[in-house]
Amino acid sequence: MFYPNGIIKSKSNFIQYGNRGMNLENDINDTNKYYLETDVAIIHKKPTSITISKVDYKSRYDAVIKEAYFKTPSTTDYNGIYKGKYIDFEAKETKLDYFPLRNIHEHQIKHLFNIVKHGGIGFLIVRFTKFNKTYFLSVDQLKKFLDNNKRKSITLDFFDTHGYILKESLRPRIDYLKIIDKLYFGGTNEKEN
Amino acid sequence: MFYPNGIIKSKSNFIQYGNRGMNLENDINDTNKYYLETDVAIIHKKPTSITISKVDYKSRYDAVIKEAYFKTPSTTDYNGIYKGKYIDFEAKETKLDYFPLRNIHEHQIKHLFNIVKHGGIGFLIVRFTKFNKTYFLSVDQLKKFLDNNKRKSITLDFFDTHGYILKESLRPRIDYLKIIDKLYFGGTNEKEN
Repeated sequence: MFYPNGIIKSKSNFIQYGNRGMNLENDINDTNKYYLETDVAIIHKKPTSITISKVDYKSRYDAVIKEAYFKTPSTTDYNGIYKGKYIDFEAKETKLDYFPLRNIHEHQIKHLFNIVKHGGIGFLIVRFTKFNKTYFLSVDQLKKFLDNNKRKSITLDFFDTHGYILKESLRPRIDYLKIIDKLYFGGTNEKEN
Repeated sequence: MFYPNGIIKSKSNFIQYGNRGMNLENDINDTNKYYLETDVAIIHKKPTSITISKVDYKSRYDAVIKEAYFKTPSTTDYNGIYKGKYIDFEAKETKLDYFPLRNIHEHQIKHLFNIVKHGGIGFLIVRFTKFNKTYFLSVDQLKKFLDNNKRKSITLDFFDTHGYILKESLRPRIDYLKIIDKLYFGGTNEKEN
């Protein structure tokens, strides 16, 4: 799915004929499902933002959307609650050696900053498909980067230094709440000492 | 818009030719916009849940959805953060003298119970269009009703006794956070004493 600004979104809402391998979105949805089933957290992906322009009402109970357009989302894709705290994040994959900032809309970054200001927990999950590495990056670290850099991309090295590797496992597939425990609920935190 | 189970959803995502008067959804969106602009809270409506089955990629940057279906939403329509707390609610209008429980999906009710269990604030906003009355009903009161009643609808009288009237004003249009202040942030609360 191509968005107006060229961001490639994962296609899990679509009928997939080819590649049925797990992408980041599927991994996160699976992880969230696990969190929900084990009563750990309630975190959901928001539906794709669209503008509907034509609907065919075949019958009272059977409506088909005949024309609709993808819309720039006004917030991030994922939010929910964990240990009483509001959780909000965006997840992105890149095929490149670095993470281009144009992959996140500016208002999504503003939204994340705003969430943290209001007492929520905000972060990014970024996967470098080429290296098969997935990182958790807190909004605080993202802010530090943006405050101190004019670069339009974040290096893998920055993620290695200021982010946290999310190892893949079977269940949950990527246990990002473990990092949140570390950072926000008094777990040990080697990086921030 | 008619959903499979006959729930009438408001049409604000559609091009509206006739009635452009304010409905509950518009009132809430306006209120949330006000909260956002005045830096009081970050609360958004989720996009409509759909399943996309056909997309026409005219060009790389110009995709048109040609076939999609409305999907039963897995959560409520609204969530966000207020004073550090996770907020989650569903809003419904009824033309009847009472509020039919079939207007809310069972899993949405379960979701709201679950939110409260995890430390969030959950509630319903229900408008009786016939009487031009809008109520805030906490999940706790909803739960009490469901635990003690076999009725398939909630009377206006129940809302009068156990809910809170949301008066309409210019800005914000319906100040539901005022009730949350009362109930959760140590404001006076005549009804729950």
